[in-house]
Amino acid sequence: MRSSQYYICTLKEAPADAEVISHKLMLRAGLIKRLSVGVYTWMPLGLRVLRKVEAIIREEMNRAGAMELLMPAVQPAELWQESGRWEKYGPDLLRFRDRYQRELVIGPTHEEVVTDAVRRDIKSYRQLPVHLYQIQSKFRDEIRPRFGVMRGREFIMKDGYSFHADYADLEREYNKMHQVYCRIFNYLGLQFRAVAADTGSIGGADSQEFHVVAETGEDSIAWCPDSDYAANVELAQALAPYMQRPAATEEMQRVATPDKTTCAAVAEMLSLPLQTTVKQIIVSMEGAPEAGNARLVALLLRGDHNLNEIKLQKLIGGYRFASHEEIQAALGCVPGYVGPVGVADKGIEIIADHSVVVMHDFVCGANEAGYHLRGVNFVRDLPEPDQIADIRNVISGDPSPDGKGYLSICRGIEVGHIFQLRTKYSRQLGCEFLDPQGKSQPMEMGCYGIGVTRVVAAAIEQGHDERGIIFPAAIAPFAVIITPVGYHNNETVRTVADQLYSRCLEAEIDVLLDDRDERPGVIFADADLIGVPHRIVVGARALANGELEYKGRQEGSESILPVADALAFLQAKLSATICAN
Amino acid sequence: MRSSQYYICTLKEAPADAEVISHKLMLRAGLIKRLSVGVYTWMPLGLRVLRKVEAIIREEMNRAGAMELLMPAVQPAELWQESGRWEKYGPDLLRFRDRYQRELVIGPTHEEVVTDAVRRDIKSYRQLPVHLYQIQSKFRDEIRPRFGVMRGREFIMKDGYSFHADYADLEREYNKMHQVYCRIFNYLGLQFRAVAADTGSIGGADSQEFHVVAETGEDSIAWCPDSDYAANVELAQALAPYMQRPAATEEMQRVATPDKTTCAAVAEMLSLPLQTTVKQIIVSMEGAPEAGNARLVALLLRGDHNLNEIKLQKLIGGYRFASHEEIQAALGCVPGYVGPVGVADKGIEIIADHSVVVMHDFVCGANEAGYHLRGVNFVRDLPEPDQIADIRNVISGDPSPDGKGYLSICRGIEVGHIFQLRTKYSRQLGCEFLDPQGKSQPMEMGCYGIGVTRVVAAAIEQGHDERGIIFPAAIAPFAVIITPVGYHNNETVRTVADQLYSRCLEAEIDVLLDDRDERPGVIFADADLIGVPHRIVVGARALANGELEYKGRQEGSESILPVADALAFLQAKLSATICAN
Repeated sequence: MRSSQYYICTLKEAPADAEVISHKLMLRAGLIKRLSVGVYTWMPLGLRVLRKVEAIIREEMNRAGAMELLMPAVQPAELWQESGRWEKYGPDLLRFRDRYQRELVIGPTHEEVVTDAVRRDIKSYRQLPVHLYQIQSKFRDEIRPRFGVMRGREFIMKDGYSFHADYADLEREYNKMHQVYCRIFNYLGLQFRAVAADTGSIGGADSQEFHVVAETGEDSIAWCPDSDYAANVELAQALAPYMQRPAATEEMQRVATPDKTTCAAVAEMLSLPLQTTVKQIIVSMEGAPEAGNARLVALLLRGDHNLNEIKLQKLIGGYRFASHEEIQAALGCVPGYVGPVGVADKGIEIIADHSVVVMHDFVCGANEAGYHLRGVNFVRDLPEPDQIADIRNVISGDPSPDGKGYLSICRGIEVGHIFQLRTKYSRQLGCEFLDPQGKSQPMEMGCYGIGVTRVVAAAIEQGHDERGIIFPAAIAPFAVIITPVGYHNNETVRTVADQLYSRCLEAEIDVLLDDRDERPGVIFADADLIGVPHRIVVGARALANGELEYKGRQEGSESILPVADALAFLQAKLSATICAN
Repeated sequence: MRSSQYYICTLKEAPADAEVISHKLMLRAGLIKRLSVGVYTWMPLGLRVLRKVEAIIREEMNRAGAMELLMPAVQPAELWQESGRWEKYGPDLLRFRDRYQRELVIGPTHEEVVTDAVRRDIKSYRQLPVHLYQIQSKFRDEIRPRFGVMRGREFIMKDGYSFHADYADLEREYNKMHQVYCRIFNYLGLQFRAVAADTGSIGGADSQEFHVVAETGEDSIAWCPDSDYAANVELAQALAPYMQRPAATEEMQRVATPDKTTCAAVAEMLSLPLQTTVKQIIVSMEGAPEAGNARLVALLLRGDHNLNEIKLQKLIGGYRFASHEEIQAALGCVPGYVGPVGVADKGIEIIADHSVVVMHDFVCGANEAGYHLRGVNFVRDLPEPDQIADIRNVISGDPSPDGKGYLSICRGIEVGHIFQLRTKYSRQLGCEFLDPQGKSQPMEMGCYGIGVTRVVAAAIEQGHDERGIIFPAAIAPFAVIITPVGYHNNETVRTVADQLYSRCLEAEIDVLLDDRDERPGVIFADADLIGVPHRIVVGARALANGELEYKGRQEGSESILPVADALAFLQAKLSATICAN
């Protein structure tokens, strides 16, 4: 492709409302264009990237025996009513009526549609298993669309659905898809982790998420460098410390801590490690009245730990954080200075995290504004907690739950998700088959998604620098860019650039020749911005010695090579990339 | 692909509501599945066909220098308000509101979106021309969706939009696209005609439709076998006959024609050719009051001709057909017996078609119930008409307007359309550029559509027989099908079938091996139904002689060939197809 005949429209500045780096760079590089809130056009340059992502996914899905189909965006309400999701799905489900007042939705997902197709076609165990997938535009009316195509409203997904005669066969396919997804994200050139996940609103049994590792990710992932353990921080188990509680060595003392309302501030003031402090959080059980007799629970966590609300919810059921008024009424103290000493006497249940019950000589609030207690010890100063449980998020350095080392924490962007739906939809929609005994059974279902448009944004979050995008070679809009200096005023430069361009095309290299009549600075900046991995500079000075300059986008390396060697050099670079995948 | 591992679900009977043959066969062959009114899922087998159509279109569009992009399905109301189509577009435009009550539409077309993108990027004549296209799902809330994907609500289009600095450049691109479209439909293996068309609601200047020729087509096309003239019947000019009016030879006579209220019935009763009769149609000018003094116009047409309402509208402006009461009041006669003699005396204007004014001794209504007149002649029996014009549809045998022969009439299915939009949208949306003189100008625009999903249906309307679909080789779901007889109980059959299958795959032939444990009758019927062009039957009897049987779907021909020659034979067949394209 020649830039002069291609649609390359880059911007110096990203619009002010672009929040994350991938959004800024995608707009600046002209990959996408905003149409309305959370809705983007994929411009030609961006679509090249998207199509490469799609092609890799499609090839691996087909190789795995899945069959591509294409389901409509617009779906009838009846199917959603039949599955029960018409009621359960919130306002993310965009509902509307056609000219005859029939209710329709724009599909945010296709479990109902695919299950309807399969129940009409598949009658016998002999026709199973079946795995159907599509790469298709979806719409979710997000409450807060943001980050460009990362959390847009209209987006492209690969969504696959498998149907099985029994659970063992579903497990086989689920495990196979885990492998297929690993291969896909490897081919895409992404650093990722497969993590255990909550099944969320979609329901079902086992579930794993695939996260692209990026500092800007919305999710925290706990993973073990010494094993393949990885889980969302919300789900990772914090093991009970393998130690006895040491004996008390200090007397309990009341210390003035004016204006120090956090563990960190108190620890700093007292020159003690944060790990010697205990924070107390008061929650009110759901359904309890607002007044003084609300059933309150005190939660104890080590000062450097954070409450895990999902774990707590599973432990005690519905709850809310207690109001300032409730805390004042129960403990006679403002929040910031509350602590467990004397709390049991007020009929408040105490739940302590595992890590708290092995502490001794700790610091906590004194239940008196402006004061904390230090040298506090269980049994002597307060009774053992009523309940001991895992109610915190894991932190870096915690032991891995699989016993094989210690956890690290990284941030990730979810780009894939595999679920075992089991018979949730097949029972609801009557998607049944006759087993070898002639008995009607609901099919076991799996479901496998990849956020295709989001993959592009995640790749950019993972690969960029101050000059622009650093695409993995497999999905860069072009593999090679030729940037001549003086194409329009130097005959030799033009001839050499044109010849190299033609030879690349003959060798089926995906090459862009920037033959625009622009300053070299603009041409070089655009090449960096759009993230082409390999660049050849054709300039008069090097040409005088029969040489060209090569620049790798990733390494930033430069090398000089003879004009005659350029094609072979590029081919070697490109095949190295393919092998690396 | 092996059938046992593929999704092949055919039906013996099409659902009763499938009206046209393509709809019936697509459902029976399992290419599509109905989801709701006018909305269909493309099942794996159907998607293979669709993707082949898309690939041919994409390759030719790219080769022509157009650049693919992908615009969203969901569009903001603001752009449609800006273009003025929010008001003008009828209820086919599906409008709805998101969770924040913002008005949106599901795009039935993308002029606004693409023009918005281009006006934000393109500033100078040096960046023009630009041709952007997409292959994307659209939604039109048709008042009467029918014929399956032929007139569905959700459908896939290739829609392209070109932007130019002047009209000459638009004309160049428009003419180029005419050639590109001819190439595309040729490659698709379709018999088609490019016809002059009305620009309809989309507005603009020149316009051509591309019709697949099929008896079941909704449109009538007039075309000349001796030239490249073709037009929608509504638009084709009926030339004035190149002859003088012969002299009267008969006296005018009143004849009783009880219950004969049509020209055809009267001609039959009188044993006269239909071409010697004149029919009179009374219309009332729009805006004229219902009462006796409505301004009526009498139209005269030859008995074998039909009124062309578009031509009449262009000639006289708004009108409606006169009511029975109006006709009774004006002529004292019921419809069915009205004629032009004496009409001029009543102050009614007469407009005659060119073909009527050269008639002599003709038959017409007597303005008296149950009577006609014969031997009627202009001047002697009634004055020359007030106006002579082309107000009829052309018929087979009419001279071609280009003077190069005679017209034939065929039926067609519109699958493509190219328009010159000129500056309709660019003016409205302010899509302007600076010309070489630094003056701001609206861009000249062209627009080029192909109904991708409709192409599949049209191909089937054109190619089918009582056994099923006869796909053109370029878009058949598979190029070759191997149908073994006894795959599951004859070792030799299985071995030979498997070997041929493997060799086909190695030779990159798009082959399906029907290895299902089904009766030969089912396997053969399915192969015919889904329309695979080339079939190899592997059977024990022929194998005993070292032979296979070949059947061509199109010709229905059968031949016997040695097992060793099968691959070379198939390769020759397939390359013959490619050459024919």
